[in-house]
Amino acid sequence: MTVEVKRDDSQWFTERADEAGMGLQLRIRGKLHEEQSDYQRIEIYDTEAFGHLMVIDGFVMLTERDNFVYHEMMSHPVLFTHPNPRRVVIIGGGDCGTLREVLRHPGVEEVVQVDIDERVTRLSEQYFPELCEANDDPRARLLFDDGVAWMGNAADASADVIIVDSTDPVGPGEGLFNRAFYAQCCRVLDEGGLLVQQSESPLLHMDLIQSMRQAMIDSGFTACHSLQFPLPTYPSGWWSATMASKGEGFEGFREADAAARPFQTRYYSVEVHQGALAMPPFFLRATGQKPL
Amino acid sequence: MTVEVKRDDSQWFTERADEAGMGLQLRIRGKLHEEQSDYQRIEIYDTEAFGHLMVIDGFVMLTERDNFVYHEMMSHPVLFTHPNPRRVVIIGGGDCGTLREVLRHPGVEEVVQVDIDERVTRLSEQYFPELCEANDDPRARLLFDDGVAWMGNAADASADVIIVDSTDPVGPGEGLFNRAFYAQCCRVLDEGGLLVQQSESPLLHMDLIQSMRQAMIDSGFTACHSLQFPLPTYPSGWWSATMASKGEGFEGFREADAAARPFQTRYYSVEVHQGALAMPPFFLRATGQKPL
Repeated sequence: MTVEVKRDDSQWFTERADEAGMGLQLRIRGKLHEEQSDYQRIEIYDTEAFGHLMVIDGFVMLTERDNFVYHEMMSHPVLFTHPNPRRVVIIGGGDCGTLREVLRHPGVEEVVQVDIDERVTRLSEQYFPELCEANDDPRARLLFDDGVAWMGNAADASADVIIVDSTDPVGPGEGLFNRAFYAQCCRVLDEGGLLVQQSESPLLHMDLIQSMRQAMIDSGFTACHSLQFPLPTYPSGWWSATMASKGEGFEGFREADAAARPFQTRYYSVEVHQGALAMPPFFLRATGQKPL
Repeated sequence: MTVEVKRDDSQWFTERADEAGMGLQLRIRGKLHEEQSDYQRIEIYDTEAFGHLMVIDGFVMLTERDNFVYHEMMSHPVLFTHPNPRRVVIIGGGDCGTLREVLRHPGVEEVVQVDIDERVTRLSEQYFPELCEANDDPRARLLFDDGVAWMGNAADASADVIIVDSTDPVGPGEGLFNRAFYAQCCRVLDEGGLLVQQSESPLLHMDLIQSMRQAMIDSGFTACHSLQFPLPTYPSGWWSATMASKGEGFEGFREADAAARPFQTRYYSVEVHQGALAMPPFFLRATGQKPL
């Protein structure tokens, strides 16, 4: 990434995805914070049009303006697909935006969030306070620990839903995209349990998506299904998440519960949920995914 | 827009959407062509990862890699919603990608395409030949004329579907986003006729979408409905099209015909069509659109 001042005095943050031959620029007013934590370099910028921006190791993590799409789509589809999600584990997710969405579900009794880097959460409390407004919920337990190690030590059949809300598969997030980790997740999930993980861009990262899906199946999950949503500040603006099922699959969408959800959403709805599950033909051909 | 050479000798094309505070970069190998036509500045670049790129007046028009999403979504949803689209008019669309998709429908008997700038089509024939492979279809008539004037002279009730595949509402495309033009379209459409127009980004351009929808209703259409799709090389990577109906609305999706379509698609499918119609709650609240 770079930050440049243009001839008109405007300042621009650039994240260049070199392997994808594309880059994203956001106009900024200035840098609010930067530090090297024990695990990664964290920066916070004030942008002109996207509010606060968090950058980790040079990659956009989230902005105030568009994170709602990501956080809603990482939580509500999987939670409204599981028949009765009471015990939820979030691996990563240190900005706490996913946690907030999960806690909106009244049936959820316990959420354990395991992010390796406490500094991400502390900076989110400061610069993205709206995402952290549920952190004091008595059902939430925030741990700052290695997610792979934590999963290896967790009890069998102790979770209903696991949400892997991680950085990209380089750096600290690397161990969260492989068969050994998924096998542990599968063991920790109770009968009928579901996992969901962000799975990058359908346009740019088909290799990753294919290998992730294969690793999920190889590690004991019976089925997987990817879903899509827009994400303007991630490479290509087009993102995906992939669900893996320990049970029968993904036919159990609790549509009536989703329609009667006792909380407001900005992106998620019953219709959007169903639409997000409809991956395009090129994706189905590349992955073997069948329409639900 | 700018083209810069970086310290590592890489060359990058940048389109900056100043009003949106964001920009897109594409790595390029070089510029293949540039000219000032009678109407606009047209450039063709060879990109590293997105194939050929056409730029008009500094804005990305299309790339080889991702135009399929746009062209399929500008044509198939509206054509599979109209009960029997025989006569189609395309306003703009000079790259001929929408025309190709429309001509895949065996029931279409005649397509008139009216683009003001013949040079766009000639350059598309040269640099995007796959998009022009149906230009010699005897059902196609390519006119190079002013779309607003053409529509004003067209006969009443002479078209079933009008597709407005235009540039942004600045420059030559400006007259295509207002009530006077829509009133002419409404007159030219036969009973039950449908119009569809690209309507920019749901995240960035809500003002435009709202005023376009209002102008459609004010000009005589009975209903309008927006749909969404990803478009990685347009600002925010998240785009929309808005359909307007002269008839009953949009309940007539010919699902069985769409499922049995005698041509291959990469983005479009029955499920994707239905999903694209599901706009998110924030959009419904801002526009008053109801889920179908």
